[in-house]
Amino acid sequence: MLGFPTLNVEKFITESLNEAAINNTSPLIHQYARSEGHPRLVQSLSKFFSPKLSRTIDPLSEIVVTVGATEAIYSTVQAFVSPGDKVLLMQPYYDSYPASILLAGGVPVLTSLKPKNLSATSAEDWELDFSELRKILETNKIKMLFLNNPHNPIGKVFKKSELLKIAAFAKEFDFLVVADEVYETLVYSDNSEPFVKFASLPDMFERTITIGSVGKMFGVTGWKIGWCISSPEIIKSIQLVHQFVPFSVTTPIQEAVAICLEKTEKNNFFSSNLNKYENLRDKLFNNLKEVGLSPMLPQGGYFILANTSSVTGFESGDKRGRDYDVCKYLTEKCGVTAIPPAAFYDEKFTGDSERKKTAGYLARFAFCKSRDMLDEANIRLKNYFNKKL
Amino acid sequence: MLGFPTLNVEKFITESLNEAAINNTSPLIHQYARSEGHPRLVQSLSKFFSPKLSRTIDPLSEIVVTVGATEAIYSTVQAFVSPGDKVLLMQPYYDSYPASILLAGGVPVLTSLKPKNLSATSAEDWELDFSELRKILETNKIKMLFLNNPHNPIGKVFKKSELLKIAAFAKEFDFLVVADEVYETLVYSDNSEPFVKFASLPDMFERTITIGSVGKMFGVTGWKIGWCISSPEIIKSIQLVHQFVPFSVTTPIQEAVAICLEKTEKNNFFSSNLNKYENLRDKLFNNLKEVGLSPMLPQGGYFILANTSSVTGFESGDKRGRDYDVCKYLTEKCGVTAIPPAAFYDEKFTGDSERKKTAGYLARFAFCKSRDMLDEANIRLKNYFNKKL
Repeated sequence: MLGFPTLNVEKFITESLNEAAINNTSPLIHQYARSEGHPRLVQSLSKFFSPKLSRTIDPLSEIVVTVGATEAIYSTVQAFVSPGDKVLLMQPYYDSYPASILLAGGVPVLTSLKPKNLSATSAEDWELDFSELRKILETNKIKMLFLNNPHNPIGKVFKKSELLKIAAFAKEFDFLVVADEVYETLVYSDNSEPFVKFASLPDMFERTITIGSVGKMFGVTGWKIGWCISSPEIIKSIQLVHQFVPFSVTTPIQEAVAICLEKTEKNNFFSSNLNKYENLRDKLFNNLKEVGLSPMLPQGGYFILANTSSVTGFESGDKRGRDYDVCKYLTEKCGVTAIPPAAFYDEKFTGDSERKKTAGYLARFAFCKSRDMLDEANIRLKNYFNKKL
Repeated sequence: MLGFPTLNVEKFITESLNEAAINNTSPLIHQYARSEGHPRLVQSLSKFFSPKLSRTIDPLSEIVVTVGATEAIYSTVQAFVSPGDKVLLMQPYYDSYPASILLAGGVPVLTSLKPKNLSATSAEDWELDFSELRKILETNKIKMLFLNNPHNPIGKVFKKSELLKIAAFAKEFDFLVVADEVYETLVYSDNSEPFVKFASLPDMFERTITIGSVGKMFGVTGWKIGWCISSPEIIKSIQLVHQFVPFSVTTPIQEAVAICLEKTEKNNFFSSNLNKYENLRDKLFNNLKEVGLSPMLPQGGYFILANTSSVTGFESGDKRGRDYDVCKYLTEKCGVTAIPPAAFYDEKFTGDSERKKTAGYLARFAFCKSRDMLDEANIRLKNYFNKKL
């Protein structure tokens, strides 16, 4: 149950690709796109995101289309982080953040999202320690902060009150915010508050780089289209890097994504897709609960963290932590693969305590899979845990 | 007449995309590819390039698929060039080379390809000054050298004797060679010698990164697929960067390129394509000659450098050189656009002499265009030059 969708891709999505690339008679559809993004796509993105950001996004100066969110992160960091610059990350984090920072010669500075306790039943129970965060900001000149919302691997959706505190810090300590919101179309209906885009908060647009991805939005991670949205000044700096990294992004796929976005104005895709994922989430959550792998209900995204304390009998010894041993054991004995959360922590920066104390007792399961696959996983987990009991 | 093809894309190429992406029932075709390259594509590339490199290229350890040649260049430089490292470039050069070097903190060191004189009639008449090159290598520790062969914008195809001299220097002074051979399938039949891939020379595979591109090979610059081929050690270093730059390359397009390559085993595409381009080359060459814009016959690629000394009456004043004034004038007065070669030189590194002396009297015309478009250009050039005479 690795982190990419194996669900069938919706027909209107492949039809869009057909319309864009195969039934398109313009030979230019197979030639270089505008480096900053294919005109039809940046228009569609502007139309889609302007209402969500409560402002009109200028398609030509406030968007750059990238090779997925990975290149968006990479080019953003290269544009703003010089050797020695400090960048604040919240553990657990996506491994592309520290890698991009280190490749730019920057220095990751860490704080952590922590669960109230390891038997928490909801992703909502993970919180930032704002007084610790203030101390870090007072003693380190921070250039940029990464905010992943909805959060991978926790599945937390930040409350508006939490985001406002981060925004106040951003002004007080004058740093940029990278808002990695790739899972924003997967915020579940039982969430207590609506999802808030960080750049929509007062004064935040000018210091926020909002990152998004078609891979997560339409379940096509192999299309490799992402974007940065920000002020014209910030986009200009990112574009200076972007033009020499990939130069431009695949034209026929950009056209296809534009068509997909245009179609969603009428076909209600995002709400039916959310509904589908919410059912899969509930299914996996209940399965994990049944076998005693205490899961934490995610508010967004397509991952569930579960407490694996009930798993015993495995061979221990992986230096990276207990979770590596448990995940390996579950793959081998039970045929179900989860990701060890220690991969989202790094002992190089903080020592082992956080990683071992928290990550060691968790595993990340993915539900971006077919119902059949989740049923099969359930049978395997039950067989295994029932035998053990 | 800018540098991308406006020719119709061959039917088998769009059919390959259809087969890869639309008529493909595997949902995995829309999900992340293997980061180093889609298995079917690296297999096809290995099959295609092994005979040309006189060795078996291991598809899994000796190739990384990139987002076009631009990302191949970028990730290669990031992998090997540390701040302060010197990289040797030959003027005129593709602007992506110095940009990648500067983004990595490296230092470009320049030598030049020079024409015997500005009334040279063939790209073959442009040569390196090997004694100057030796002096540079004796006084600078060079980490990497860029070799563009066939050469853009000159259209020169290096002779084996020239490549052997560079290879001997690479051993003597211990540097890596980036062989940017994106135009290798466009080496014309009237060339005096066959094209030689640099990595096929004795002992060169282990120190050469060979870069190629689907955009140039199949005339689809918008597909954004390129690659690096080298030893497993070198590929491993490039992959360490590549995995955090785009992570992976569009899966359906990689599948389509694999199918294209497989089809060329039977459909004779490369020879008919070469024939088509050779006819276009001859057409543009004769057109330019007729109107007194003395062209230099290219041995490879799809550009022609022409001497514009006969153009007069334009307003001068562009600080970057006479060629900018001439190209602007031709666009405005005559409706034919060429690229000023000064864009391939940089006064920051060498002062203005080379740029003004050589580039100032040249313009780069592209013939990757339809016969109709070349005919129209011919009419416009004739109208203009006949009126002037």
